[in-house]
Amino acid sequence: MGKLMKDKLIEHLQDAHALETNMIVMLQNNIAACADDGIRHVYEWHLDETRRHEKLLRERLEELDSAPSLRKEGPAIGGAFVKGLVDGVRSDKHGKMARDSYIAEQTEIAAYELLKRVARHAGDEKTMDLAENIRLEEVNMVVHLSEHLDRFVELSLEEQGLEVATLV
Amino acid sequence: MGKLMKDKLIEHLQDAHALETNMIVMLQNNIAACADDGIRHVYEWHLDETRRHEKLLRERLEELDSAPSLRKEGPAIGGAFVKGLVDGVRSDKHGKMARDSYIAEQTEIAAYELLKRVARHAGDEKTMDLAENIRLEEVNMVVHLSEHLDRFVELSLEEQGLEVATLV
Repeated sequence: MGKLMKDKLIEHLQDAHALETNMIVMLQNNIAACADDGIRHVYEWHLDETRRHEKLLRERLEELDSAPSLRKEGPAIGGAFVKGLVDGVRSDKHGKMARDSYIAEQTEIAAYELLKRVARHAGDEKTMDLAENIRLEEVNMVVHLSEHLDRFVELSLEEQGLEVATLV
Repeated sequence: MGKLMKDKLIEHLQDAHALETNMIVMLQNNIAACADDGIRHVYEWHLDETRRHEKLLRERLEELDSAPSLRKEGPAIGGAFVKGLVDGVRSDKHGKMARDSYIAEQTEIAAYELLKRVARHAGDEKTMDLAENIRLEEVNMVVHLSEHLDRFVELSLEEQGLEVATLV
């Protein structure tokens, strides 16, 4: 693998690592704030997975004689992004949580789709497999979040004092 | 529909409208910057759809005696969010374009999933149908973007002077 290609691969690995690091913080916040046991369990399960992802990416970076980028470990994902669009909502903790969680997972999926392809061009099968295995766990998390969307919306309405109709 | 519930529904409609307004700008930028005819065609097609979405949401807001929120029409979606994570990349126009487009579509999908459910609680079938119909077109756009991911990555590598291997 040429130096330019290796640099490119490492950039993508560092991006993915930064996303996982931010995700750990986001999941811890959601676990603390969530009012539903079933959803909290989903978050706890995924926190274990996310810690493993962070470790796997850090180890792969070290094997490539690199390291996580400190610079890239910025603010929690999701929150800052959507903030401007939901600032008008006085209190919609669970609505924001659902939206931010979903977007954060999809952001990771996009990162792994790109990482997988860059690794393929670099001929790095180990990183290809790593990216694909992690991507599948992120896709699985999206499925779990989607399954709980009705409950998220009920919580969102309840916390604003709205009556929740029985859904058909 | 009670006033609180109607306010909630309008908030979600305004969020969705703000996303579509931002998406129009993002798509125009991508059409101008994209180096691939096939991908540009996908963006052009979706720009027409997006303009229609913006109009449908604006009309629904007017039917509910409301209007788009000016406050919510902030910076282009996607770009600002991912910026912090890809600042290290000197020039990766098409890589960023792929990622931002994917995340922006998923953000819209999340918004329509929530809007649809809030409309259901509000007993507003017209908004339910509107949200579901637009959501399906956003999902379709994700499929098109995913189909072009290989090409996006090739363009990303090429613009950085990297040799692109023939993919298996």
